[in-house]
Amino acid sequence: MKKINIDQLNQYYNQEVEICGFVDNIRNLQWVQFIIIRDRSGKVQVTIEKSEEKNKELVELVDKLTLESTVKIKGIVMESPKVKLNGMEIIPSNIEITSKSEIELPFNYKNPESANIDTKMDYRFIDLRSEKNTAIFQIQSFLVKSMRDFLYNNNFIEIHTPKLIATASESGSEVFEVKYFNDKAYLAQSPQFYKQMAIASGFEKVFEVAPAFRAENSNTNRHTTEFTSFDLEFCDIDSYEDVMQLEEQLLEYSLKEIKNKYGEKIKSIFGVDIVVPKVPFPRIKLQDLYQELSKRYNYEIPTDDIGDMNAEAEKLTTKFAMEEYGSEFIFVTDFSKTKRAFYHMRKDDIPQGYDLIWRGMEITTGAQREHRYDILKNQAQEKGLGKDVKFYLEFFKYGCPPHGGFALGVDRLTMLLLGLPNLKETMFLFRGPNRLNP
Amino acid sequence: MKKINIDQLNQYYNQEVEICGFVDNIRNLQWVQFIIIRDRSGKVQVTIEKSEEKNKELVELVDKLTLESTVKIKGIVMESPKVKLNGMEIIPSNIEITSKSEIELPFNYKNPESANIDTKMDYRFIDLRSEKNTAIFQIQSFLVKSMRDFLYNNNFIEIHTPKLIATASESGSEVFEVKYFNDKAYLAQSPQFYKQMAIASGFEKVFEVAPAFRAENSNTNRHTTEFTSFDLEFCDIDSYEDVMQLEEQLLEYSLKEIKNKYGEKIKSIFGVDIVVPKVPFPRIKLQDLYQELSKRYNYEIPTDDIGDMNAEAEKLTTKFAMEEYGSEFIFVTDFSKTKRAFYHMRKDDIPQGYDLIWRGMEITTGAQREHRYDILKNQAQEKGLGKDVKFYLEFFKYGCPPHGGFALGVDRLTMLLLGLPNLKETMFLFRGPNRLNP
Repeated sequence: MKKINIDQLNQYYNQEVEICGFVDNIRNLQWVQFIIIRDRSGKVQVTIEKSEEKNKELVELVDKLTLESTVKIKGIVMESPKVKLNGMEIIPSNIEITSKSEIELPFNYKNPESANIDTKMDYRFIDLRSEKNTAIFQIQSFLVKSMRDFLYNNNFIEIHTPKLIATASESGSEVFEVKYFNDKAYLAQSPQFYKQMAIASGFEKVFEVAPAFRAENSNTNRHTTEFTSFDLEFCDIDSYEDVMQLEEQLLEYSLKEIKNKYGEKIKSIFGVDIVVPKVPFPRIKLQDLYQELSKRYNYEIPTDDIGDMNAEAEKLTTKFAMEEYGSEFIFVTDFSKTKRAFYHMRKDDIPQGYDLIWRGMEITTGAQREHRYDILKNQAQEKGLGKDVKFYLEFFKYGCPPHGGFALGVDRLTMLLLGLPNLKETMFLFRGPNRLNP
Repeated sequence: MKKINIDQLNQYYNQEVEICGFVDNIRNLQWVQFIIIRDRSGKVQVTIEKSEEKNKELVELVDKLTLESTVKIKGIVMESPKVKLNGMEIIPSNIEITSKSEIELPFNYKNPESANIDTKMDYRFIDLRSEKNTAIFQIQSFLVKSMRDFLYNNNFIEIHTPKLIATASESGSEVFEVKYFNDKAYLAQSPQFYKQMAIASGFEKVFEVAPAFRAENSNTNRHTTEFTSFDLEFCDIDSYEDVMQLEEQLLEYSLKEIKNKYGEKIKSIFGVDIVVPKVPFPRIKLQDLYQELSKRYNYEIPTDDIGDMNAEAEKLTTKFAMEEYGSEFIFVTDFSKTKRAFYHMRKDDIPQGYDLIWRGMEITTGAQREHRYDILKNQAQEKGLGKDVKFYLEFFKYGCPPHGGFALGVDRLTMLLLGLPNLKETMFLFRGPNRLNP
């Protein structure tokens, strides 16, 4: 017999069906037993009349049933307006306990306040059972699917670049070291160099969704040692304007898809409205933004951050974008070259790239890349990068077209999409300096 | 002006277009210059008459042009039946050299015999420029897309599980050790434990496409230290028959998609026919298979491999499957429990799983998993696994439905799909004990 998802049961009134799920609740009354069964799609009540002779075995089984056990139930679906839960119930003819839960759960995952974050992380497999947490990953999966679909439609190829690399790579942050037979390897902090290699290989348009690793010893709501990076790179651009255009179209497409499929669910569970952005997103130069933030909010960028953004400035930038343009998204351009990676192309000494700010946070750094060997080599040397990038510079010696790209953190994007306060909630299993388990 | 892909040029006869690409060939004759431009979609001839006054600058530019440089060309597309290459040519009004290649390439990538495998790996970004190599990754990307699409259509969620783990995991092969702040971490050999955790979390149906790491110090055509694993797991199965059914449907769907889109291209470049398999695939018990191999090919499994397969047996099994069933695929079941992982469910002491053999090679081990805590714990202990799997055993204490799943190696699948002799060719950048570069 085919298993029916609980949200489909209203198509099977008065028919016999089979459902599978977790025991979400049990009420064992004098004359009747109610079990609430939960699967990914919803919940349903199963009703057992104790007085009926044929139910004797079922009643005994339910007497011993524990919450969170899993069951397979065969029974008739009845329309029952008096039942609060969806106005239906199942009258079972058979119940099979497919796995039995211990009576005491480590914490009550239905009441998130009942446990601290560490307990929830220790028992993440229970924490994830809540409607909210399951929804996070269902929506995240669909978000990534939508982003991929947009790129497939635009002729991109998905690549899989190595995470084991020979030299500590480009980013300023720290790199994990791996014992590699009698040698050392490192874990890639980003596929930056390799997606550019794909451009030098003539792949034209590439993307990758894969783990990236950062050995940063900091414990904040924004940091993690491992995250899922959505990276892309494409060639034959005229300027970074082409990169911004692709990114705004990608986000417009994906948010439209999400709103259509999950808009109502997101509103009801997370209390967040999905806003499909209008393209083009507003664009502003960093110096002009500084002036606006000063004029409007009396905010002056600290000396150390001049030429760059910081968390406070990002928050205010969203405020400004909403007030001035009615837009949740805004591109900020014309950062200082001292604050940008050596591989960003420069024009009149200005990096040809941008940050994209959404809902108070930077979600992307994008840019046209420097593809001319001599200039790129100089820019690397200027940043004090020598033999570690030698292999990378080689990619540009034998022809490499103009190109650009960007990266989005899947976890951070999910956090902002659903209005969550903490990156940990958007990761199946969070990894930080003090967290490697389970 | 919008850039036109070369394979679309026949829609633009007598119109001005812009194309971008690599300089694939130059013939500089007395009266005329021919340049062949290559992009991912094809090649086209650009013709410059030296005698025309307006071409003076173009002629000088082409005089200095080097092979494999990249260019942006504006010109008129002309139908020219006398031109062998697609019967067309472009008469340029402008050529811009967007990047200049050095005159001497490290090797001639168009003649793969001209360089040894190490040179090709050192200069993989050039090696990948060949039509064949670009096609491999275009097809691989589409293969993975098709597999994902099938799973999305079947209500699967994509998850991203951590690659940094606290304990050396399940598989017998060696694990890479990572310096993790003041502690140690390891690189995941597979997402096995975590995809099962997703089942205990009530996610029901999950998949992941991600790197997996094996610290095996062996240099063969089948081994690599990092590969792309396509993993899935789903619940509420009755037996591993459900797992085999899902896998054969997944492969039927994906191979059909591939044949439709790339069947001709694969035939012409790789000389391989894509055969869309009929489901159900044949199934045979290992003991019966041994008898067939003995009877038909006089092959006896070596004592050490009894209860299991080996490379030779896999080859002959395909021969048998073709002869007996006309099928490229065959499921082999009833392996010995001593040869299977502790987490495979057993029935009458027989592991409830299978290997899937395709074109002479094992491509999957799949199984129903043991989801009952006490039995699972015993089976772990029997294999001498103690505290390393303690965190994993926890997943089964608080309810976990019956489930099963399998994994496919994307690289190996690509290799077999295209009839390639070596795994290295199907990896964007191969990683082995002696290979971490570029």
